Amino acid sequence: MAKLYFKYGAMGSSKTAQALITKYNYEENGMTVWLIKPSADTRDGATVIRSRVGLEAKAEVILPDDDIVEKYDRRGHTDVVIVDECQFMSPEHIDQLRELVNFRNVPVLCFGLRTDFQSKLFPGSRRLFEVADCFDEIKTMCDCGAKATNTARIDAEGYVVTEGAQLLLGGNDSYIAMCHRCWQKHIREHRKVR
Amino acid sequence: MAKLYFKYGAMGSSKTAQALITKYNYEENGMTVWLIKPSADTRDGATVIRSRVGLEAKAEVILPDDDIVEKYDRRGHTDVVIVDECQFMSPEHIDQLRELVNFRNVPVLCFGLRTDFQSKLFPGSRRLFEVADCFDEIKTMCDCGAKATNTARIDAEGYVVTEGAQLLLGGNDSYIAMCHRCWQKHIREHRKVR
Amino acid sequence: MAKLYFKYGAMGSSKTAQALITKYNYEENGMTVWLIKPSADTRDGATVIRSRVGLEAKAEVILPDDDIVEKYDRRGHTDVVIVDECQFMSPEHIDQLRELVNFRNVPVLCFGLRTDFQSKLFPGSRRLFEVADCFDEIKTMCDCGAKATNTARIDAEGYVVTEGAQLLLGGNDSYIAMCHRCWQKHIREHRKVR
Amino acid sequence: MAKLYFKYGAMGSSKTAQALITKYNYEENGMTVWLIKPSADTRDGATVIRSRVGLEAKAEVILPDDDIVEKYDRRGHTDVVIVDECQFMSPEHIDQLRELVNFRNVPVLCFGLRTDFQSKLFPGSRRLFEVADCFDEIKTMCDCGAKATNTARIDAEGYVVTEGAQLLLGGNDSYIAMCHRCWQKHIREHRKVR
Repeated sequence: MAKLYFKYGAMGSSKTAQALITKYNYEENGMTVWLIKPSADTRDGATVIRSRVGLEAKAEVILPDDDIVEKYDRRGHTDVVIVDECQFMSPEHIDQLRELVNFRNVPVLCFGLRTDFQSKLFPGSRRLFEVADCFDEIKTMCDCGAKATNTARIDAEGYVVTEGAQLLLGGNDSYIAMCHRCWQKHIREHRKVR
Repeated sequence: MAKLYFKYGAMGSSKTAQALITKYNYEENGMTVWLIKPSADTRDGATVIRSRVGLEAKAEVILPDDDIVEKYDRRGHTDVVIVDECQFMSPEHIDQLRELVNFRNVPVLCFGLRTDFQSKLFPGSRRLFEVADCFDEIKTMCDCGAKATNTARIDAEGYVVTEGAQLLLGGNDSYIAMCHRCWQKHIREHRKVR
Repeated sequence: MAKLYFKYGAMGSSKTAQALITKYNYEENGMTVWLIKPSADTRDGATVIRSRVGLEAKAEVILPDDDIVEKYDRRGHTDVVIVDECQFMSPEHIDQLRELVNFRNVPVLCFGLRTDFQSKLFPGSRRLFEVADCFDEIKTMCDCGAKATNTARIDAEGYVVTEGAQLLLGGNDSYIAMCHRCWQKHIREHRKVR
Repeated sequence: MAKLYFKYGAMGSSKTAQALITKYNYEENGMTVWLIKPSADTRDGATVIRSRVGLEAKAEVILPDDDIVEKYDRRGHTDVVIVDECQFMSPEHIDQLRELVNFRNVPVLCFGLRTDFQSKLFPGSRRLFEVADCFDEIKTMCDCGAKATNTARIDAEGYVVTEGAQLLLGGNDSYIAMCHRCWQKHIREHRKVR
């Protein structure tokens, strides 16, 4: 039976590269992949997913009111669904992905962030921790050598930001992956990250 | 450096037995274990943790207003903290456990349910998915042979319950572990579990 | 489809307790478990498996010339096979367990040591690393705080033994779990363990 | 403390892509990576590692008589060692990598095949199963939908080969990843793979 996977990591853990390699592997075996992403992420234009390591692919954008099951049923044959930036999917969208797994028997692989810059779950990642079958951590390292679990937001002067909107798109300038201990230390000691 | 572990599973996955075996292993190596549980769970009396397989141990009960860091600091030397029924800990208590890991460098192992009977996270499990370093699934099986990820609440007639309070203590009479697909099927087809 | 699991750990990681809890969980769900062990291990008498934490159960002993598939087929209905001390199974026995999984579609869960006192694979653990579907580590800790991966053999004076027969049954007196680094340091510095 | 990782998979599971992404991630964080491969693999020329998904990097070739610790000590500062095709490393080379982890405290990440076309361990993968700290499976799928654990060798007519030398370099023409059950079925029923 098909399963719903949540492959999560902090900023810079190559989640998108993993999504694109997974797509490549399925397609090399002759399978049809439906690559989708939520509309909240418009960093790379509406329909291209890009990984910093140098991979890219076209993705279909899911709008807030889209019904993923309906869109799936209207497509031709699909062997697997791959979701990039799944943390920005709404809980309703995650439930629709769960429906695909349960009642269409198609595997769904969701790649995305675990928590925001305040160590709170995103709507999509919260729902995935509730209903996914399997969790896989995509690992990256803190400067201290420990596993990085947090995505710290950094202001223009290099300090860790603790207040603000959950959604603030940015790249290596604005975010850095850290272990929880270093993240806390930077905040408590008001220490510059760089 | 010490880590915060969330060892989660569905009802009947022997989480408490795992907690007690872990305690035994540490103590056999000469280490001091602080075994705690939140006050919400009073099934076995205030201070005894019991596993159906036949293991038991005394635990200290953490009240809603307790400060776990303060209690820890007042104890003598402690090598490891083990938490049973961690899903009932408040987010503040989880943050205090995180503090022990980060700033006392003591490993904390939390055993508990992942989701409630509606597939929603508990306050404690939500906060652990946000701040724990490592997730380990304690597995159990659905009748269909798949891994059980959900804890279904069953009414007196054997039907799956979908409405009610999150907290309703009970054992094998009231709850049964299922995979998400079977749980959904029982609800949609209004099918009796037993 | 059924799978072949290798649940491995060092000495003292509660492998047998895990095997017995797994058996309990299956039986509580109304399933029939066939618990077996190789004849090489006679520590607890011919047919009883005992865990130090205080659990025990009767097991059927598999002799070197036994054909496990044949024995399985002669039994009545069996839902799952659990193997304790699987490191002492011969490669042929592991292949027979694989046969049960592939062609009888029964899950087989093997609990045992990963390596011997010289960090060499046992015949059974080598074959399981070749043909099992899933590896699960049963963890225990080194005195230094790291994960223990090695099972050091200790002589009467407390030094780590590096030469001798692979099979020398013993308990906490003769063996101690360590991380690879500490194990190497004890050998190189000819340092007493206790 | 640093660790020795064995990241294993079957043919076509994108092990090399994973090695190159890992290298990219470390270097993006300002770290120095030493990328090495054993001389047995000369498919891509002496010093270039290539992944089918479209990534490549220069690697230093380790010859059978090389002492990896000595080579490491002669290099300038190195933060991490990444090994591609580690299954072809000799047990002595794996022990030298273990030495780097234990006594130079540098993390070593080994990417490679788990087993050969007969489901036997390679010299390098056998030694890694004995001495690595962490195993991570790089997954790929069998045509049947199950996880592929075996690398079947296919002859010119499309049948699974069961006899021959362990080392026979080839790509998608000669090898295909399968689950153990399908691999056995193809052999027993003398069924063509394609």
